[in-house]
Amino acid sequence: MKPKKLWGGRFAESTDQLMEKFSASVAVDSRLYRQDIAGSLAHARMLASVGILQQAEFDLIESGLQNIQRQIEAGDFEWSQAYEDVHMNIEARLTDAIGEAGKKLHTGRSRNDQVATDMRLYLREEIDAICALLTSLQHILAVLAEREADTIMPGFTHMQGAQPITFGHHMLAWNEMLERDHQRLQECRQRVNVSPLGSAALAGTSYPINRNMTADELGFSGLCRNSLDAVSDRDFMIEFNADAALLMVHLSRMAEEMVLWSTDAFAFVDLGDAFCTGSSIMPQKKNPDVVELIRGKCGRVNGNLHALLMLMKAQPLAYNRDNQEDKEPLFDSIDTLLMTLQVLVAMMPDIEVKRETMYAAAAAGYSTATDLADYLVCKQIPFRDAHEIVGLVVADAIHSDIRLDQMTLQQLQLRCQAIEADVFDVLTLEGSVAARNHIGGTAPEQVRAAARDVQQKLNLRVEDK
Amino acid sequence: MKPKKLWGGRFAESTDQLMEKFSASVAVDSRLYRQDIAGSLAHARMLASVGILQQAEFDLIESGLQNIQRQIEAGDFEWSQAYEDVHMNIEARLTDAIGEAGKKLHTGRSRNDQVATDMRLYLREEIDAICALLTSLQHILAVLAEREADTIMPGFTHMQGAQPITFGHHMLAWNEMLERDHQRLQECRQRVNVSPLGSAALAGTSYPINRNMTADELGFSGLCRNSLDAVSDRDFMIEFNADAALLMVHLSRMAEEMVLWSTDAFAFVDLGDAFCTGSSIMPQKKNPDVVELIRGKCGRVNGNLHALLMLMKAQPLAYNRDNQEDKEPLFDSIDTLLMTLQVLVAMMPDIEVKRETMYAAAAAGYSTATDLADYLVCKQIPFRDAHEIVGLVVADAIHSDIRLDQMTLQQLQLRCQAIEADVFDVLTLEGSVAARNHIGGTAPEQVRAAARDVQQKLNLRVEDK
Amino acid sequence: MKPKKLWGGRFAESTDQLMEKFSASVAVDSRLYRQDIAGSLAHARMLASVGILQQAEFDLIESGLQNIQRQIEAGDFEWSQAYEDVHMNIEARLTDAIGEAGKKLHTGRSRNDQVATDMRLYLREEIDAICALLTSLQHILAVLAEREADTIMPGFTHMQGAQPITFGHHMLAWNEMLERDHQRLQECRQRVNVSPLGSAALAGTSYPINRNMTADELGFSGLCRNSLDAVSDRDFMIEFNADAALLMVHLSRMAEEMVLWSTDAFAFVDLGDAFCTGSSIMPQKKNPDVVELIRGKCGRVNGNLHALLMLMKAQPLAYNRDNQEDKEPLFDSIDTLLMTLQVLVAMMPDIEVKRETMYAAAAAGYSTATDLADYLVCKQIPFRDAHEIVGLVVADAIHSDIRLDQMTLQQLQLRCQAIEADVFDVLTLEGSVAARNHIGGTAPEQVRAAARDVQQKLNLRVEDK
Amino acid sequence: MKPKKLWGGRFAESTDQLMEKFSASVAVDSRLYRQDIAGSLAHARMLASVGILQQAEFDLIESGLQNIQRQIEAGDFEWSQAYEDVHMNIEARLTDAIGEAGKKLHTGRSRNDQVATDMRLYLREEIDAICALLTSLQHILAVLAEREADTIMPGFTHMQGAQPITFGHHMLAWNEMLERDHQRLQECRQRVNVSPLGSAALAGTSYPINRNMTADELGFSGLCRNSLDAVSDRDFMIEFNADAALLMVHLSRMAEEMVLWSTDAFAFVDLGDAFCTGSSIMPQKKNPDVVELIRGKCGRVNGNLHALLMLMKAQPLAYNRDNQEDKEPLFDSIDTLLMTLQVLVAMMPDIEVKRETMYAAAAAGYSTATDLADYLVCKQIPFRDAHEIVGLVVADAIHSDIRLDQMTLQQLQLRCQAIEADVFDVLTLEGSVAARNHIGGTAPEQVRAAARDVQQKLNLRVEDK
Repeated sequence: MKPKKLWGGRFAESTDQLMEKFSASVAVDSRLYRQDIAGSLAHARMLASVGILQQAEFDLIESGLQNIQRQIEAGDFEWSQAYEDVHMNIEARLTDAIGEAGKKLHTGRSRNDQVATDMRLYLREEIDAICALLTSLQHILAVLAEREADTIMPGFTHMQGAQPITFGHHMLAWNEMLERDHQRLQECRQRVNVSPLGSAALAGTSYPINRNMTADELGFSGLCRNSLDAVSDRDFMIEFNADAALLMVHLSRMAEEMVLWSTDAFAFVDLGDAFCTGSSIMPQKKNPDVVELIRGKCGRVNGNLHALLMLMKAQPLAYNRDNQEDKEPLFDSIDTLLMTLQVLVAMMPDIEVKRETMYAAAAAGYSTATDLADYLVCKQIPFRDAHEIVGLVVADAIHSDIRLDQMTLQQLQLRCQAIEADVFDVLTLEGSVAARNHIGGTAPEQVRAAARDVQQKLNLRVEDK
Repeated sequence: MKPKKLWGGRFAESTDQLMEKFSASVAVDSRLYRQDIAGSLAHARMLASVGILQQAEFDLIESGLQNIQRQIEAGDFEWSQAYEDVHMNIEARLTDAIGEAGKKLHTGRSRNDQVATDMRLYLREEIDAICALLTSLQHILAVLAEREADTIMPGFTHMQGAQPITFGHHMLAWNEMLERDHQRLQECRQRVNVSPLGSAALAGTSYPINRNMTADELGFSGLCRNSLDAVSDRDFMIEFNADAALLMVHLSRMAEEMVLWSTDAFAFVDLGDAFCTGSSIMPQKKNPDVVELIRGKCGRVNGNLHALLMLMKAQPLAYNRDNQEDKEPLFDSIDTLLMTLQVLVAMMPDIEVKRETMYAAAAAGYSTATDLADYLVCKQIPFRDAHEIVGLVVADAIHSDIRLDQMTLQQLQLRCQAIEADVFDVLTLEGSVAARNHIGGTAPEQVRAAARDVQQKLNLRVEDK
Repeated sequence: MKPKKLWGGRFAESTDQLMEKFSASVAVDSRLYRQDIAGSLAHARMLASVGILQQAEFDLIESGLQNIQRQIEAGDFEWSQAYEDVHMNIEARLTDAIGEAGKKLHTGRSRNDQVATDMRLYLREEIDAICALLTSLQHILAVLAEREADTIMPGFTHMQGAQPITFGHHMLAWNEMLERDHQRLQECRQRVNVSPLGSAALAGTSYPINRNMTADELGFSGLCRNSLDAVSDRDFMIEFNADAALLMVHLSRMAEEMVLWSTDAFAFVDLGDAFCTGSSIMPQKKNPDVVELIRGKCGRVNGNLHALLMLMKAQPLAYNRDNQEDKEPLFDSIDTLLMTLQVLVAMMPDIEVKRETMYAAAAAGYSTATDLADYLVCKQIPFRDAHEIVGLVVADAIHSDIRLDQMTLQQLQLRCQAIEADVFDVLTLEGSVAARNHIGGTAPEQVRAAARDVQQKLNLRVEDK
Repeated sequence: MKPKKLWGGRFAESTDQLMEKFSASVAVDSRLYRQDIAGSLAHARMLASVGILQQAEFDLIESGLQNIQRQIEAGDFEWSQAYEDVHMNIEARLTDAIGEAGKKLHTGRSRNDQVATDMRLYLREEIDAICALLTSLQHILAVLAEREADTIMPGFTHMQGAQPITFGHHMLAWNEMLERDHQRLQECRQRVNVSPLGSAALAGTSYPINRNMTADELGFSGLCRNSLDAVSDRDFMIEFNADAALLMVHLSRMAEEMVLWSTDAFAFVDLGDAFCTGSSIMPQKKNPDVVELIRGKCGRVNGNLHALLMLMKAQPLAYNRDNQEDKEPLFDSIDTLLMTLQVLVAMMPDIEVKRETMYAAAAAGYSTATDLADYLVCKQIPFRDAHEIVGLVVADAIHSDIRLDQMTLQQLQLRCQAIEADVFDVLTLEGSVAARNHIGGTAPEQVRAAARDVQQKLNLRVEDK
């Protein structure tokens, strides 16, 4: 027999089958069952505390919901499309199980505030899981940074060799991106963590409810202050997804660098066999699939952001059914982030850093040309003139197909008489990086200190939990 | 026992479990099984025809693949994540079943051209399904248009009553949008329908293959002309998704109008109980959920387009693993379109057109003001002056809280002496719409003819199939 | 004579003309002149303090830059495309004016940290301007909310009449959206307000610079902690634009409601002649152009967000020329926000609220059906049963074409014997709204208190500045 | 004195100044002046032909409009914000100049069909300009392809050396992308090239107009068939921008490869000094700015697409003022495409192809491993077994740090006894590419033929114009 609609009183015809399939969300939102039950328990406990439910009724509801949760987790719960969503499925089952008391659970609330509550509880948990993974990944980078504080590599701008830097410095740059992501997610969490419960359909309810009680019970730090807004607001999802999109852009940048560094042409790192795959046709291939996939997954999370923003554009208040479409993009972004971060946390500790190749690449270009210009400035030549002189020196070196430090003093003096024998000290890679010895600079000393500082702060962050 | 990788020869460590989960696509791409098997059969038949396979080997492969297809369709095929994707799952099973011959199937091809072939075959089929639904929906609109060719409603610009139009005319405007969508999808289909098979990994193959033979066998109308491009091109998916995004924008516009028309304030249509749902809290509600959901689904299809474009941005040739991420957005867009169009095809024939309400709304505003201006032009008053005079007349009418056709001749002449008693003919709604009697105009006569013409063309389109 | 490139030393051919036009950014970035000069002054003062510049040189630079600023502001500065960007234009002019000292200004910095500094200073200012306008708009809404705390209107879900609410309550819902926008922008500002200066090209510099000194001088609250990140980070722009996109989505929702409320069908508000325009052909039209344009402008700011995210996708560190493309989307979003908020601040105080129309619309539907169900719950009928009973009552009322409060007691009792004469008290609009008297509810008492609370907090915010 | 609004009759207050600035579009749409005048001339000529204008009036209008066009092109026309847009500016000036006749020009049309006409005429022209540049660029690639048909380079998948290909083959892959872009733009052009003129505000007009006459006069190939759709349709812009976005994605892929090929690590091409720039701080730098900027500009054109799609989402028919926002994204996409294509057409012919470096890179990997597997297949070893054997051979080679063709026959036979001395023929790069000798394959013979075929077709395309 077809299940009876919980809202069917006013309707003449039965819902079209196709329509049911089109509009049901239970296949997607059943993952909210824990949050939905927790919300119902808090709501019921509050109803009992203000006398709307009898204690005995509450007890029935409580054990009934706990039973349902056990059934779901044991895989024994049959979700029904005809009951549309997670809320109706659970409530209908509850009433089947405990009778009249079940019919009283929905007193003073609506699916509109119920789903908003569920989603906030759910997202709060997932933000915590994502932030924990982020912290792990940051810690791995900081440890790598300390270990490789002296490892010289070419620093690039425009993908052209620019100045020597250290690999540790580069790892810390990645950490900075992730640090901002963590900050943003924490701030977003605060806006997620407020309770819409009690807003009912859109206007609040005429029952003498206690919104603070349910908020406390569910661990919310405050209340949504306007019932209309509470049921129509999807900002918290959009803000999360904007943070997620930017995080994925960061990961795509890291991934791109690892793809490049894994090429034969660069060969700066080896990502490890466990994180590469082969080809069905070319037996020699070892492909950096993980980082390619991460780069690719950037698109979907950005697409999800776009979907959510477009969803909300020009929607009049309060709740509209359009908003059912908020779940799949959000869930997909969450799943993608969790999976991607897990893989990076597993992979990064074991990447092989090819120090010799990086050093050789740094030495091959003209990456200390800026140091030569700076040397000239110390000889009282204005920077712009020094810049021009070094430009000519580099042209000479390219023309003779030699490195800067392979030029003779004579060759150098041809372009500027102020150059003396001590110039060769500044043309070494080690001298160049060591000289950038200020906050944020690439000097190994700075990198090591910064890496330790980061680790310390991350340790504190974990302890604070 | 863990399945053996088909490309594992070169590798030292085993693939990390997490990595396997991260990179496997079989959960998503197994829906391509029919296309994959069809492609393999065509490839094997061609290999046999050029002597790379023995006839007996081909026979084994053919019956083996047919068996696998039956197993899949009977739900008896166990998909394995360790075999990564649909291609490897099927090939590994085939070799299990038929031995040595199975190992020869992949001769002269690569997963790179294989997946491109599967996707093109799959999308071709889905475009045909979508276009068939589009045609049905267009036909429904054209029939509605003919039936309601005389039904007067207010035409809006800026959501303000502008000029009277007919409901049939409005339905034909919707048809025009869908007609362009159909055209675009047909043109896209031509670019989908070319064969990449034979491009192998990226460079073609050294076997004496016959690309035209496999293309013909699979019903492709031509070949991808460059093997590098063939394996790295995802244009056909992006173009399809751009067409899909615009189609969904059109459906969101139609949906928005139906939401508006279903409000108490407008009350121009009733969508039927079968396509509305109720509220869990408010017993009186009848919500136009279907059209709200359609409006909402516009976001996801646009998000998918964005995901695909971002995916391909700045990808160097040829195939990169990023491209595995092409499937979910595409499949989601296809599924969304099919479902949405089906629902509209089911719903539209039975919407109730509330003719009286629409007529009354058209009569209530000042929608024939333009007709009055045009009347003055016929009296030799330049249009700009006429426009200004009528502006003052309307201000008078608003001030007296009456309609234009309720003003007395005297009142009208106060603003312009040229107005005579015959003015009242042009101020009727019927007169106004009938006067717009040129191609594309709202006159019932035009609408009826246009609606019939559309039906005729759609009938021809269906017959041509 | 063609200006000499400041980096031309190494180059053999002259830059192609077309290339110059393609790559020059001065037409766009010249609006940064104030920030660029402020940054240069701070940098020069620091260089002098650490002995890299002589005091006399600094004095020349200072007066030289001040002169240039005056010229620019007087419109006497000729921007040259050949000097590419705002930085080079100003530096070249400075050297023209003051000679050798000018050539020393660029010591220890690069355009990479210079432009990042300029952009952060610029954005910081604009965020402040935007937040000030937001605060004004919020204040206007809160004042409106207090004034209209008792004004009853229909509350909608699914665009169908749901429950009566007050117009003041609705205004406060809008305020909540904007309040979150303000919060987000303030948090973003903190990440904007750190100094990249001293990061030079990507690795820091070998000069003994004092990064804290320049940061203090420019009012930054801290330093970018990694030089590689400092020059390649565009997060602060993306985060701002994500905030801007969501803000525009909010404004599009408000705009949509005002478009609807301005239709003849709703007629809830009159936006005022000053903010509407007419038609070139239809003399009677008064179109709500301002709010339509705001709704439309939502697209462009979202497009800008998308452009920035896509720009940064998969970019390897550190600076790449791609990033020049960050300015136009950002500037366009800023300009759009400023203009849009100004217009709303000008328009909102004078909108005419049509109380009678709204009251009549609220009375016309069945918006107190939930109150009837709640009444039955008080009579010990479980909510789900009560919901069903009321569904049938509403069906009866629709069938008889009367309102709920027009039904006789007898008619009501037909569906439920528990209904008594006191039912008519809960079926009034006033009773319905007054009953929702808890935090966030629509009761006039709550709305009035909330509106005053908002005003108080906004006043404190302004005083804190 | 403030200019008088052309639609001011009905209004009581004057338009707010800010509002005027907010809503005026003339700064943006004045670039449509030629199309606007052409459209007005065609409309006026038609009005005369059906007797609505006297011949003398038409003559006045014609010379008046021609005068205005001359003034605009001479820079003598003062655009006024108070006249809002290009249409009103020109019409008001015309009436100033010629008096009464000017006031008759707007008879039977509206700004709604006028602006749609202007935009279609404008876009049609720009598509032609873009397609001409595309054709030039394709021709350059095809000529390069023929010249470099024998130039061996490593072909990459996953950015790992895969199989040797030829540079000519790679250029033809680029051409394929652009060929599809050209096709799409041509198909889009057909949907652009239909006439909305005569649709008036939304419903058509009561004057006896001749829509076919104006369409012919303006070179349109047909009519918009529904007046409501004609004024609310922005598909043609969206479709164009979708094509533009995909084209820019293609150019970003080409640009990315050129950035990579310009690195020291790859050094496959030199883009030429004229298309690179230097650094303000690092004297040795030669940055591939042009291709970086192209890669970056991909974001903005995609952002524009997004803006337009979001703009149209859920807009009810017919014209809404939101649509004024269609122009800036469209114009920006057009300008970006034109500029970018021009720069590539200037740059590509002179890029230096470094044949030796590419050959060496192809030789350095194990790019002929597939050929070895294919060799084994010819020895009757099933492909899957051959693939596995070669995997082990490659592992041996990596272990001994030698190339495949440097292994001894003995070493090879260790893994497979079937290998004989003739194996070394298939392990050469030349042998590998020559063997891929089928349609679309990388064999020089195929590439040369394909390149000539492309050139021939492009020549025909140009002649057809």
